[in-house]
Amino acid sequence: MDKPIKIAIAGLGTVGVGVLKVLNDNKEAIAARCGRSIEVCAISARDRTRDRGVSIEGLTWYDNPVDMAEDDNVDVVVELIGGSDGTAKALCEAAIENGKHVVTANKALIAHHGTALAKAAEAKGVNVSYEAAVAGGIPIIKALREGLAGNTFDRVYGILNGTCNYMLTDMRETGRDFDVILSEAQDKGYAEADPSFDVDGIDAAHKLAILTSVAFGCEVNFEGVQVEGIRHVSPIDIEFAEELGYRIKLLGITSRKNGHVEQRVHPCMVSKEHPISKVEDVFNAVVVEGNFVDRAVFEGRGAGEGPTASAVVGDLVDIARGLSVPTFSVAADKLKKLPSSPLARHKGSYYVRLMVLDRPGVFADIACVLKEHGVSMETVVQRHHAPDKSVPLVLTLHETQEQSMLDALDGIAKLDSVVETPRMIRIEDF
Amino acid sequence: MDKPIKIAIAGLGTVGVGVLKVLNDNKEAIAARCGRSIEVCAISARDRTRDRGVSIEGLTWYDNPVDMAEDDNVDVVVELIGGSDGTAKALCEAAIENGKHVVTANKALIAHHGTALAKAAEAKGVNVSYEAAVAGGIPIIKALREGLAGNTFDRVYGILNGTCNYMLTDMRETGRDFDVILSEAQDKGYAEADPSFDVDGIDAAHKLAILTSVAFGCEVNFEGVQVEGIRHVSPIDIEFAEELGYRIKLLGITSRKNGHVEQRVHPCMVSKEHPISKVEDVFNAVVVEGNFVDRAVFEGRGAGEGPTASAVVGDLVDIARGLSVPTFSVAADKLKKLPSSPLARHKGSYYVRLMVLDRPGVFADIACVLKEHGVSMETVVQRHHAPDKSVPLVLTLHETQEQSMLDALDGIAKLDSVVETPRMIRIEDF
Repeated sequence: MDKPIKIAIAGLGTVGVGVLKVLNDNKEAIAARCGRSIEVCAISARDRTRDRGVSIEGLTWYDNPVDMAEDDNVDVVVELIGGSDGTAKALCEAAIENGKHVVTANKALIAHHGTALAKAAEAKGVNVSYEAAVAGGIPIIKALREGLAGNTFDRVYGILNGTCNYMLTDMRETGRDFDVILSEAQDKGYAEADPSFDVDGIDAAHKLAILTSVAFGCEVNFEGVQVEGIRHVSPIDIEFAEELGYRIKLLGITSRKNGHVEQRVHPCMVSKEHPISKVEDVFNAVVVEGNFVDRAVFEGRGAGEGPTASAVVGDLVDIARGLSVPTFSVAADKLKKLPSSPLARHKGSYYVRLMVLDRPGVFADIACVLKEHGVSMETVVQRHHAPDKSVPLVLTLHETQEQSMLDALDGIAKLDSVVETPRMIRIEDF
Repeated sequence: MDKPIKIAIAGLGTVGVGVLKVLNDNKEAIAARCGRSIEVCAISARDRTRDRGVSIEGLTWYDNPVDMAEDDNVDVVVELIGGSDGTAKALCEAAIENGKHVVTANKALIAHHGTALAKAAEAKGVNVSYEAAVAGGIPIIKALREGLAGNTFDRVYGILNGTCNYMLTDMRETGRDFDVILSEAQDKGYAEADPSFDVDGIDAAHKLAILTSVAFGCEVNFEGVQVEGIRHVSPIDIEFAEELGYRIKLLGITSRKNGHVEQRVHPCMVSKEHPISKVEDVFNAVVVEGNFVDRAVFEGRGAGEGPTASAVVGDLVDIARGLSVPTFSVAADKLKKLPSSPLARHKGSYYVRLMVLDRPGVFADIACVLKEHGVSMETVVQRHHAPDKSVPLVLTLHETQEQSMLDALDGIAKLDSVVETPRMIRIEDF
């Protein structure tokens, strides 16, 4: 056995406590796998006295986590503080500067500063590992960066936010409204008091930006992610989706075409037959399309104490075994700057729901506007009939450029007989 | 860039040609990821002149692949000959002996000689890599050995044979008989002329033995796998399974309890709601249950040129990057010898289909035999009514020990009114 590897943990919330438990409960198995033990030697958290159900006796305590970066005993700093800047960033930078490996679960940090951290770490010969930042317990970074490294990837997509998937599943199963389910999820602790990071798609966008970099070997470009959350998804759209053979999922999709990268997070209609449609509740899933492996699907819990801690410890095991791989698959100073492709140029199919006054001629007016913008219809569903009242009219449109679709929707919204803002959801034909 | 790593390929069948294509088509991406290029320098195959659609110009040709092991130019030998012994084994042993890494897609070889090869390789400081041997393109060995290495595993299971899954899917969708589908699959090239390795479960058993070793850190024990194929699965059982809420899948299941390992491959009834039930056609899937990650599911193509070559090249990328991990997760000389748990001691639920003469008292006789052996019924289905003719009678039994179930089936088979051999399929409540 080699000598133990010593780690310092900053942040003892859910994940930090989980890491302590994994290292304790699976101590022997982990030591056998690494040929050495992984020992926590120092910690830092907000409250020294809080009972967390795990012992922190004998560990060096730091009031200021950044000071751990200078502890000579420490080989690896595990950053579980969170936030894209502030202490988390300062700690990681200081740790690298002092020649220590960094393991983090912090997607915001990596999405915003991943390239710079990777450059600093690789220059110092240490690892910045972040498996826990994307899709929790699913070892998707390792799969993309190593296991599937023989492939070139044209598209990677997935369900990257468990809270949204839970809510969409609940909406479909119960027919209840977004607001009702959100407040219930908040009560249960599945959604944050400020749910914006989750339901507005920002959390998924952080993860997507990271996946993009690993898949395409380019600099992390969070600003390039085009984001739309699930707030406007309503039970009636979920119902129509079912009728049309689709499920509505909040997906993150990154794809590469003609040297441009398109990164987008938004609600999607996906065929009920596609594996990703069958991933429900808080589960995450990532689909990788490689030019030789074809389609590979990875599914598991995307958050929570155990799964996230599993990912953190997976990274620690790599470090204890002396493994080192370029942070984003390709050496940081060789990462490409790939231009972003705007959503306006996206080509896809669309679902559109209008609330229209049920009277003769309405449909002709709508068809006219669509024709004007070169958008062609695939199906029309009008289930209800209620003369002179407002009824839903659902269209699906053949593949068209998004800008044409948006222009057509503007025109349609202006029609007298269209009484609400049109709802548009992109259809993905994976 | 470091100097190129040189590889020799033995066997230019489907997978060998695939490896040449991957290394050629993705040359630049792979070199960027490895920081060096991966170059094929030598090959060996049965026929030097056959047109394989890829150029082998400029490569050193070996009539006897074992001679490649002594080629000083060669850093890695890729063994794609197949078979548990003979040339494949001789080549791998000679390569290791000469200090060369080995990459193989040969599940039979690893299932039979994995422990010995691992010991030899680790003593010489070289890798024996075999990602392609299990579940084709799915990087499941890497996931278990590295990404999920923070966990202890109590159970791993999956659909490990694409041919069987394709046939079972077809049987369910078309209601056709096993024999009809098998001969069609043979015509299409989905099944071998001698289908026994696939349909009798041996191929899945090879893969399961390997998964067991990686998951539990024990010596590979192929003899410990208890195997039953899909030949006796009939459309009527598939139909009843649907009615009871199950799908029939050929699964490999390895689990650990009280220091014993139970390895089994057989047709299973799995709830239609479970992700593995939704994996159809030639796709493979592996489910890992870790004590922290909970359940993670990996799905993809289990065979074929592209997916298998993707796995081989994934292993080559690891080697080119200088990564080395114990062959079966734990150093080969520390692998445990875990005793096998016989299927007779297995505890589970069961589906039983009897063909009985439809007359009064039959059911009472059957119930009597079950009672005698302490087996208790959960459901009984008798759909048809045809006095004095033979009709199917389907039972599901509550959890019981397999030996009791088998004894009860023996007793039932002896009843006058039971006119065919009872069919039993294990129900898995994952």
